[in-house]
Amino acid sequence: MQKSLVAEFLGTFWLVFGGCGSAVLAAAYPELGIGFVGVAFAFGLTVLTMAYAVGGISGGHFNPAVSLGLTVAGRFPAARLVPYIVVQVIGAIAAAALLYLIASGKAGFELGGFAANGYGDHSPGGYSLLSALLIEVLLTMFFLIIILGSTSSRVPAGFAPLAIGLGLTLIHLVSIPVTNTSVNPARSTGQALFVGGWALQQLWLFWIAPLAGGALGGLVWKFLDDAD
Amino acid sequence: MQKSLVAEFLGTFWLVFGGCGSAVLAAAYPELGIGFVGVAFAFGLTVLTMAYAVGGISGGHFNPAVSLGLTVAGRFPAARLVPYIVVQVIGAIAAAALLYLIASGKAGFELGGFAANGYGDHSPGGYSLLSALLIEVLLTMFFLIIILGSTSSRVPAGFAPLAIGLGLTLIHLVSIPVTNTSVNPARSTGQALFVGGWALQQLWLFWIAPLAGGALGGLVWKFLDDAD
Amino acid sequence: MQKSLVAEFLGTFWLVFGGCGSAVLAAAYPELGIGFVGVAFAFGLTVLTMAYAVGGISGGHFNPAVSLGLTVAGRFPAARLVPYIVVQVIGAIAAAALLYLIASGKAGFELGGFAANGYGDHSPGGYSLLSALLIEVLLTMFFLIIILGSTSSRVPAGFAPLAIGLGLTLIHLVSIPVTNTSVNPARSTGQALFVGGWALQQLWLFWIAPLAGGALGGLVWKFLDDAD
Amino acid sequence: MQKSLVAEFLGTFWLVFGGCGSAVLAAAYPELGIGFVGVAFAFGLTVLTMAYAVGGISGGHFNPAVSLGLTVAGRFPAARLVPYIVVQVIGAIAAAALLYLIASGKAGFELGGFAANGYGDHSPGGYSLLSALLIEVLLTMFFLIIILGSTSSRVPAGFAPLAIGLGLTLIHLVSIPVTNTSVNPARSTGQALFVGGWALQQLWLFWIAPLAGGALGGLVWKFLDDAD
Repeated sequence: MQKSLVAEFLGTFWLVFGGCGSAVLAAAYPELGIGFVGVAFAFGLTVLTMAYAVGGISGGHFNPAVSLGLTVAGRFPAARLVPYIVVQVIGAIAAAALLYLIASGKAGFELGGFAANGYGDHSPGGYSLLSALLIEVLLTMFFLIIILGSTSSRVPAGFAPLAIGLGLTLIHLVSIPVTNTSVNPARSTGQALFVGGWALQQLWLFWIAPLAGGALGGLVWKFLDDAD
Repeated sequence: MQKSLVAEFLGTFWLVFGGCGSAVLAAAYPELGIGFVGVAFAFGLTVLTMAYAVGGISGGHFNPAVSLGLTVAGRFPAARLVPYIVVQVIGAIAAAALLYLIASGKAGFELGGFAANGYGDHSPGGYSLLSALLIEVLLTMFFLIIILGSTSSRVPAGFAPLAIGLGLTLIHLVSIPVTNTSVNPARSTGQALFVGGWALQQLWLFWIAPLAGGALGGLVWKFLDDAD
Repeated sequence: MQKSLVAEFLGTFWLVFGGCGSAVLAAAYPELGIGFVGVAFAFGLTVLTMAYAVGGISGGHFNPAVSLGLTVAGRFPAARLVPYIVVQVIGAIAAAALLYLIASGKAGFELGGFAANGYGDHSPGGYSLLSALLIEVLLTMFFLIIILGSTSSRVPAGFAPLAIGLGLTLIHLVSIPVTNTSVNPARSTGQALFVGGWALQQLWLFWIAPLAGGALGGLVWKFLDDAD
Repeated sequence: MQKSLVAEFLGTFWLVFGGCGSAVLAAAYPELGIGFVGVAFAFGLTVLTMAYAVGGISGGHFNPAVSLGLTVAGRFPAARLVPYIVVQVIGAIAAAALLYLIASGKAGFELGGFAANGYGDHSPGGYSLLSALLIEVLLTMFFLIIILGSTSSRVPAGFAPLAIGLGLTLIHLVSIPVTNTSVNPARSTGQALFVGGWALQQLWLFWIAPLAGGALGGLVWKFLDDAD
């Protein structure tokens, strides 16, 4: 189990460093910046790559909502839930710290939103708390259905990281303007710690909504997966 | 069969929520918006992801034109056609409703085209009814050839969702300016109900053309698939 | 063999309609247009999708330079070269015709370059004949190495269409500004017939260079493939 | 071994010609240019395509830092390290030369940065030496974890080139603004020779950091890979 925790640390580190890093460093670069499309691919490819790299060691969750959804669906032992979530959050914080160190190595650096998640006044597009809550629950629920379905025995082995990673890309293509896209409480926590203030005050939603959505996704899949 | 209808509902919901959602929420975001490229990937990835997730349960049609084309090609029983199409349309309407609820949670929200499909004055680029008709028939026909070919026994198992999903991305890369891209009557219906007026008046084309194209694609594939 | 010719017709039709169609209809759409990135993905995805769909029927060449390169490498019988090339060219012309019909269904339509290939004054970025010649030979050579390598017995079955399609995307990402990217004489011929004038006068280069590159690629692969 | 050196030459040539070529020729094209997103995909797809094409011949390193990391992890014999690195550097220089020849075939050509790597005043976004060092070490370390993990026996055969190529895309999505992204000393050397001056003076970092990161990645993987 030791090794699986290291793998979850590394995977969540990579998710936050790669995904939030692309947003902070490259999204708004003048003229040539990657925009939301680039950020969406970056987040998705972090999961795609590390799921291939270390998925065989830890299962490749990298996200407390995923770990919870897998537990609800009966695919992950409840006893391992807390240690997994703890190292995921630590990995996210470490990534945010290193990203802060690198991003600040630039004259005139300003922290700005630092890719933190928010709603209302802190939603990139000014969406309400209700919109944020709905979309985070819904997208996390479908994320879990994709994860559980693509790793089921109905699908030939090896394709799941493609479906899951590109699913996370899709989720970002839809929802960055609403909440900056969480669907992952660890990812939200790491960035919020560095932004402080409003980001910490709004952090509750990015735990509640993804965890609820993850659990719902686990239940939906269980229903679908029962023999017809 | 119960479970397969739920799967079709979920898959069509995801197609419309993810694809139209990316268009409504993220395409035109100032500076960083995802544009037509992002919308094209979003639509394609909805199908890629749900085909991996629930394709093994329902076949992963998520589209009346696909169900019809598969029936024409002898791959789907005609008796199941109507229930499949009904739940696909219901799934699309539900997705449009939830998207409306989320999108309107923003100060100054305007419905606009709400990602509905149109021709003539309501074509994004001002293309004629004839152009719209031709391109929708043609693209749906090829979509079916891709679906039938990639799921045939000539191709190793597991790759079809990649080909099909990315095929839908390609279709959008070409035709968003012409019709906002349908190739899927369910997707068109959900959005048209919320836009009303012109969108409902033009909806006939986005049933006729994709269904005709889907049936044609089924026939072309049957011809190609016969032993040489 | 009848069926394989139909498959090559359809595949080349799709390559030209999808690739050039994305360029003509969607690349320069105001604000939201897909740009060269979108066109590069569109071209690549035409090949990816039809290689999965009908590759098992015809081999999925869709390009005279590919057919020639495969013949040089000993993978395709010389006797079938001419019929393949003939239907590829016919498919490309048919696609250009249909694209013309659809694209002209818009008030104020102007033909413009119509995605034809060119050098010198007709290179998108103003590159010389020598630059055009070099890059077309080089890129087609590597395209054949990718095709021959990824379809060899060294690679597990099923992945080749991904490598080949995305290889064509890569080729476009590099060379659209130089020649508008050919690496395919059929694709160049279809568009040139509709543009006429300069496009027909420069068409020789987009036969010579891709065919030379394709043959070279076949030779390089043969060298590499011999047992060590 | 002769053939594997040719394969490494070709693969590194393709990486530099395709990746740096997309940056030099297409990134900043007015209105339609591919931007950093397009360059990121171009670099990734060079590796994805050639790993499928010639990975079975040479292992598909195309990068001294990869060869070193594989050696540290016990997957590549130390005796072959020097010849591999030599041909990789030669391949990169040849690609830079050909790119120079093609790019200069345009009226008003200016060399500019020629896609060379830099830090401080020569970082695209003005990032410090420390930021550059940290991000190059970190990204190369994860690149090796992805390579070693996805080619391990835990993953079904055939998917590794997807994970590795798209991993390189991700790396570029994050770090082009910081260093123009190296993670590959051969790639840096080819471009620096043509730019001269500052690019040669800063070249040390783009050997030290990727090699250190590659070695670290090899060590981390060895730790992870040991039986639990």
